[in-house]
Amino acid sequence: MFKIRSLVTALALASSISVAYAWEALPTEAPAPADNATTAAKVELGQLLYHDPRLSSTGTVSCASCHNTSLGGEDNRPNSVGVNGQTGGRSAPTVWNAAFNKVQFWDGRAASLEEQAAGPVTNPIEMGMASWDDVVARLKTIDGYVTTFEQVFGKDSISKENATKAIAAYERTLITPNSPYDRYVAGDKSALTAQQVRGLEKVAELGCTGCHSGPAFNGPGVFQKFPVIANGTLEASHHFSKDKGLAEVSKKVEDEHLWKVPTLRNIALTAPYLHNGSAKTLDETVKLMAKLQLGKDLSKDETADIVAFLNGLTGEFPKQKFPTLPGTPGKSFTN
Amino acid sequence: MFKIRSLVTALALASSISVAYAWEALPTEAPAPADNATTAAKVELGQLLYHDPRLSSTGTVSCASCHNTSLGGEDNRPNSVGVNGQTGGRSAPTVWNAAFNKVQFWDGRAASLEEQAAGPVTNPIEMGMASWDDVVARLKTIDGYVTTFEQVFGKDSISKENATKAIAAYERTLITPNSPYDRYVAGDKSALTAQQVRGLEKVAELGCTGCHSGPAFNGPGVFQKFPVIANGTLEASHHFSKDKGLAEVSKKVEDEHLWKVPTLRNIALTAPYLHNGSAKTLDETVKLMAKLQLGKDLSKDETADIVAFLNGLTGEFPKQKFPTLPGTPGKSFTN
Repeated sequence: MFKIRSLVTALALASSISVAYAWEALPTEAPAPADNATTAAKVELGQLLYHDPRLSSTGTVSCASCHNTSLGGEDNRPNSVGVNGQTGGRSAPTVWNAAFNKVQFWDGRAASLEEQAAGPVTNPIEMGMASWDDVVARLKTIDGYVTTFEQVFGKDSISKENATKAIAAYERTLITPNSPYDRYVAGDKSALTAQQVRGLEKVAELGCTGCHSGPAFNGPGVFQKFPVIANGTLEASHHFSKDKGLAEVSKKVEDEHLWKVPTLRNIALTAPYLHNGSAKTLDETVKLMAKLQLGKDLSKDETADIVAFLNGLTGEFPKQKFPTLPGTPGKSFTN
Repeated sequence: MFKIRSLVTALALASSISVAYAWEALPTEAPAPADNATTAAKVELGQLLYHDPRLSSTGTVSCASCHNTSLGGEDNRPNSVGVNGQTGGRSAPTVWNAAFNKVQFWDGRAASLEEQAAGPVTNPIEMGMASWDDVVARLKTIDGYVTTFEQVFGKDSISKENATKAIAAYERTLITPNSPYDRYVAGDKSALTAQQVRGLEKVAELGCTGCHSGPAFNGPGVFQKFPVIANGTLEASHHFSKDKGLAEVSKKVEDEHLWKVPTLRNIALTAPYLHNGSAKTLDETVKLMAKLQLGKDLSKDETADIVAFLNGLTGEFPKQKFPTLPGTPGKSFTN
């Protein structure tokens, strides 16, 4: 009986929702803040800084180490590895399309890409620099950076502010348009398979798009509670209560377990999933999200359809230059 | 008296040696073995494998992590950092122009680039894969590699042999010609400063070129004993006796402290120096090598001239494509 009713509802909604829900393609450009226009020279400098392991205390960890632009914009690990083999408790979010996030970090504690870029560099378990003064001092010893910063920002311009502006400008170019989904939305009805279209309709029908809406599927809202519905079994296996999300920063009870709604773009490439990387596959994640956020048990077919749809969100990576970094003649790092 | 005699000898030798010693420019192509022709498609595959952290157990360490082609072909550290933050006892040699080494690794235990490429992947403190069978199994789960290997090597061709062939083919393209020294040798007498020319003449006069000869300054011979001359003070500070070089592999007394003669190409970019990374600067290294290998105490000016010359060995890095790696939908690594 339940199955039949579900099916009827699904069919009814499927025909209406594909009209009612406004599916949006990904923009090919990201808006920049008034004080940080995206220029080619700035993007190029940002790309160098982003890929430079000398921004870490040990000379071994760059932004790209955990947010790998050669892959899905992260590292396919539950937790990333920072300097001296240290790991934290959260899973690296993808840098692809991060320009479309309203806030940054899993707990949304940074309001902009610029603010975000400043964080990991001096985080003791990530890039481990003692201070941004130390980063600036180190960059000043690299002649190529002195010249390039001057070209982009003017004379004697190596600073935390300008370095993070350049990194943010670069990140605004890390957009992956033309996924099968985008081509489908643009009118190419053959771009998604029949199963993927079923999955697309299902995510709207179920209410996934209540949070994962918009061109990057990262919300109309900024934060969302997770898990919404308590589940002892899943808590035992996934330890969600350990990390209180936004409340870890704000120390407010009402912020407990609030998280930034993450993009679904390129999600097929970013296993494992969830803020703590505790869900290994898309199948597991889709079922778990339906259960914990919507109180729904998905069938095997529903799950497969949604996973097929999510696989249709993998876009095209932009062509990049190979980042040849300015050398530091005679400099070395210690253990 | 000693100073005056040195000066006279230096002048006498300087005029004769700049004729007598055959300075050679770097070839722009490296010869390939008969069974591993350098083709564009193979080089491209090799570049991907070289930059792919999924060749390590943790998904965090690629060949490029320690032999960084965005920089001087290594990591500017005394010892590199492998999986789980582990460090070994030797300093990563540069990959630039490694194609011109007669043997590979500091102890020369690999006869070819192909053989070398196989080593770090399964070294427990470097990339930590349990076996090449595991590497092959993992690569087979990545559709993009299945296709690319097929294009390069034929159907069902993912194997240790072919992966290392591709990496070696890529490495044969990592040549840095057109250094100031190369332009000088080619006839542009303004390419080196007067001080650099003094340094060039000095390295031949002192006998540095007895070992560091040829276009890559890595020998007519393959191995050289280091240190040649025992020095208690330098042993106390640099701990050379700890690592027995080739003898660590061969277990032969006569191989104790035999080392591959390293290239001097791009040496200004590859601090710190020596097999154990115990010399921080070029100044220190030049003085130390003269003392331990030739029994000579260099003056401040002699050292400065030689260091200036060595700075003239920094070549031009080839233009590379940005390595966009084939994705692994749904796969992840565990801690």
